[in-house]
Amino acid sequence: MSATATILLAHGSSDSNWLAPFEALTERIRSGMQQQPDSQGPIHLAYMELAEPSLEQTVAELAQSGVRHIDVLPLFFAAGRHLRKDVPNQIAALEQQLPVSIQLHPPVGLEPEVSEAINQVVIRLMQS
Amino acid sequence: MSATATILLAHGSSDSNWLAPFEALTERIRSGMQQQPDSQGPIHLAYMELAEPSLEQTVAELAQSGVRHIDVLPLFFAAGRHLRKDVPNQIAALEQQLPVSIQLHPPVGLEPEVSEAINQVVIRLMQS
Repeated sequence: MSATATILLAHGSSDSNWLAPFEALTERIRSGMQQQPDSQGPIHLAYMELAEPSLEQTVAELAQSGVRHIDVLPLFFAAGRHLRKDVPNQIAALEQQLPVSIQLHPPVGLEPEVSEAINQVVIRLMQS
Repeated sequence: MSATATILLAHGSSDSNWLAPFEALTERIRSGMQQQPDSQGPIHLAYMELAEPSLEQTVAELAQSGVRHIDVLPLFFAAGRHLRKDVPNQIAALEQQLPVSIQLHPPVGLEPEVSEAINQVVIRLMQS
């Protein structure tokens, strides 16, 4: 396994209807990745709370398998308390316990590609 | 005002850092809309809970101004309890009280444009 990995971090829910689209999205990204020779390491999906695999469990397994750097990309629309306090605290605790460095990226919903896509969905909806 | 309007529905938070990107997104979409002559009615941002304007307040104001049909597009990644129970209940109550029909659309995060955009962000992140 690569020494680097990426975790897509979703909020989590006890409702499996809520989880399914995140699993589908992760599968789609994994398939796309196989055609990207420059990409670094595998993609994992983890949940901040209420669902498994948890962030803690996923990071522990990656560390165990030799991964030393993890990029965490939050599948959130915006950064509230969870991404400014809870997740940084989870990450700080993991970095203390395990030989990994973890980089928390801004929420995916703030990235220009995603705003533009939402824009397109709204235009499509309003013209239909 | 047009007889039709669109509400972008975000979860809401007591944290203004969380709200700001939704306001920016709505502004961006509104600016884009002005160049779309076929689009129907204005765009509003409302929150399901914890922030103002609420869904109830926004729908009441639109009904008051003569709007008779409202499309609600949830700025959520997936449909859990909120979108399968809480929001439909809010909408049913509003339709009973006010002379409006309200259509709740699937969460924007399930639309193919948004999945594809997230895919692009992950690829960009992994190649950087």
